Amino acid sequence: MGKLFNEDMVNYGTNRSSIRELFEFGKKRALEVGADKVYDYSLGNPNVPAPESVRKSLERIVAIPDTTLVHGYTSAPGDLRVRNAVANNIKTRFGVDISADYIYMTCGAAASLCISLRALNTDNNEFIILAPFFPEYKVFTLSAGGTPVVVPYSEPDFGPDFDKLEKAITKNTKAIIVNSPNNPSGAVFSEDTIKKIVAILNKKSKEYGNPIYIIADEPYREIVYGDVKVPYIMNYYDNTVVCYSYSKSLSLPGERIGYVAVSPKAEGANELYAAVCGAGRAMGYVCAPSIWQNVIMDCVNDLPNVKAYEENRNLLYNSLTDMGYTCVRPDGAFYLFIKTPEPDARAFSNRAKNYGLLLVPGDDFGAKGYVRAAYCVSNDMIKRSLPAFKELIDSYK
Amino acid sequence: MGKLFNEDMVNYGTNRSSIRELFEFGKKRALEVGADKVYDYSLGNPNVPAPESVRKSLERIVAIPDTTLVHGYTSAPGDLRVRNAVANNIKTRFGVDISADYIYMTCGAAASLCISLRALNTDNNEFIILAPFFPEYKVFTLSAGGTPVVVPYSEPDFGPDFDKLEKAITKNTKAIIVNSPNNPSGAVFSEDTIKKIVAILNKKSKEYGNPIYIIADEPYREIVYGDVKVPYIMNYYDNTVVCYSYSKSLSLPGERIGYVAVSPKAEGANELYAAVCGAGRAMGYVCAPSIWQNVIMDCVNDLPNVKAYEENRNLLYNSLTDMGYTCVRPDGAFYLFIKTPEPDARAFSNRAKNYGLLLVPGDDFGAKGYVRAAYCVSNDMIKRSLPAFKELIDSYK
Repeated sequence: MGKLFNEDMVNYGTNRSSIRELFEFGKKRALEVGADKVYDYSLGNPNVPAPESVRKSLERIVAIPDTTLVHGYTSAPGDLRVRNAVANNIKTRFGVDISADYIYMTCGAAASLCISLRALNTDNNEFIILAPFFPEYKVFTLSAGGTPVVVPYSEPDFGPDFDKLEKAITKNTKAIIVNSPNNPSGAVFSEDTIKKIVAILNKKSKEYGNPIYIIADEPYREIVYGDVKVPYIMNYYDNTVVCYSYSKSLSLPGERIGYVAVSPKAEGANELYAAVCGAGRAMGYVCAPSIWQNVIMDCVNDLPNVKAYEENRNLLYNSLTDMGYTCVRPDGAFYLFIKTPEPDARAFSNRAKNYGLLLVPGDDFGAKGYVRAAYCVSNDMIKRSLPAFKELIDSYK
Repeated sequence: MGKLFNEDMVNYGTNRSSIRELFEFGKKRALEVGADKVYDYSLGNPNVPAPESVRKSLERIVAIPDTTLVHGYTSAPGDLRVRNAVANNIKTRFGVDISADYIYMTCGAAASLCISLRALNTDNNEFIILAPFFPEYKVFTLSAGGTPVVVPYSEPDFGPDFDKLEKAITKNTKAIIVNSPNNPSGAVFSEDTIKKIVAILNKKSKEYGNPIYIIADEPYREIVYGDVKVPYIMNYYDNTVVCYSYSKSLSLPGERIGYVAVSPKAEGANELYAAVCGAGRAMGYVCAPSIWQNVIMDCVNDLPNVKAYEENRNLLYNSLTDMGYTCVRPDGAFYLFIKTPEPDARAFSNRAKNYGLLLVPGDDFGAKGYVRAAYCVSNDMIKRSLPAFKELIDSYK
């Protein structure tokens, strides 16, 4: 019979993501040297508390006398009232004519992505991933039976390399994952960038006679600074599937609540929505946690406290550039992408550990020579970490 | 390129399970004829409220000032404190020497099953399903890349047909799913039955030189009547993976919380546990909802109010047999399997609808000539439904 267990699964379970590895290292290290001497920039775990409205909503729900009304099964795609609330939110904010029939509630963005990829993949299709990218995209694509195709970024703005994008598209390309605001670079794609991507997809769809879908992974949509705008891709391109999560916007990453929204104008929209429902079913996602569906009904229009992240961004970006670091100034999300003073980002990340700084090497994000600092941490931790950053860069002089 | 979307997924999303179809029919029918004239026995949605301890736990958690401690990411396999609590619960109740290192918290039993199947399947392995069975087993097995092999039951006790089980095992058999207390029959496998299954698996494992695993799907473990005992399979067979859910025992079916427990004595236990972690990761299960992990920490030792279900069982079983129905007397779970007075259970189920009775035909459970009545409903509804059952059987005279 050969191997006892699925080798890929053993591998995914044994070799954790470098982010998680660093996070676990930090927990150990804190026990050794004291938590105040570890500056953990590894994980995108929001430090901003959930809005008070979430607590109020939970209190309301927990007080409902008949618990079966709260904790019972919902419809598989989600409670109709919740899906109506989400559809109305999209309609009001972005002017898209969408109904509950195109909303499927999920256990967060990772579930949304896995479900969408599984629904779209027919026969080892190619899925384009724009570097730099969230490393799990590769795992999710392979797991859905697809082939990830990475397209490089262009510097200094970390937008896509349009020429290379066009060349990467084949007759077997099923979709492209667009993640803006971007993890790990913090870049936000402008309307112009979206239009250029759309033009390429339209051209290539026509050339091959197949629709090419955009999977818009948007957990950071609400986290943008100043007057930066995030274009709503459904308004620019019909063949769009939005994967959303409330993990970052409502600071609920452990709770696993989000949705898939299929554009009603997508080619085969109704069949695609059915495939999304089917993929959720086939992977054991019976329904999204009902207490969180109820919370979303109450809090669907709430927005995060971006000010705290913006202060962090300003402090970290300004301090590091003053010290001589080269950084990509993030317009959104809560990640700072730092160019490493030596070409080997892993070596730099290891050296940084000696100063108590946990910075994730960019290699796994498809960007060599960078590290990612997740600044969804306390402002105080950033302040306390600055001398360590200074010593670290000075060690290269 | 052929089909736009994955055909299996479109199919799973379009052709819902017959249980769900009937449930949706009932909701529509209630609007037409009045909710009091629809006797919905379709869905295993517990009517017994969640224990008061769950509300108390939720109140405690919701009051914690720092929301990031509650709603943040946990470790992927689950918060270590929760996994310790679950391991201790198993150790104390069943005498199994197990630690947190073999517990993986999941979004309920469906997730547990999909993850375990994905971890175990290497190359289109065969997975044995004992009839009668929860219909989603087939979907989950196919979705994990395996082949479901159904083994018939023996009457009248709805235990496995041991001869046919032995013959069904091939060199490509990877595991057998054992579901006791059983959905849909309510049968509980005795110690003797478990020992006979184990003897066959031991014999066949030896013959083919491969371990054959038991996937013990145990969401109904706590729901048994009188002095019936559910043997803990890890105590009889080393190559065991337990898929547990709190959906039924704590009446939280919509919340999606459960676990996978790998027997530490299983062949390749550590690698299998890694594969479970990897499969969860590859399907987008980042972590089980953290608020529910916290609740389980508080309520891990709580047991359901079985008395209410037992009263329902007695009322429905006794009334129906008095009317002339032939039923399997359930020792556990909250399902009554009723022999239909005509051979075609679908025809009977359709006729029952005319009397407002929603009964799921057994065909999809691998048992022709039966319907399933889920009696996790109010005792009052059962009482009110009895005249309809009487009229229904009289219509066959």
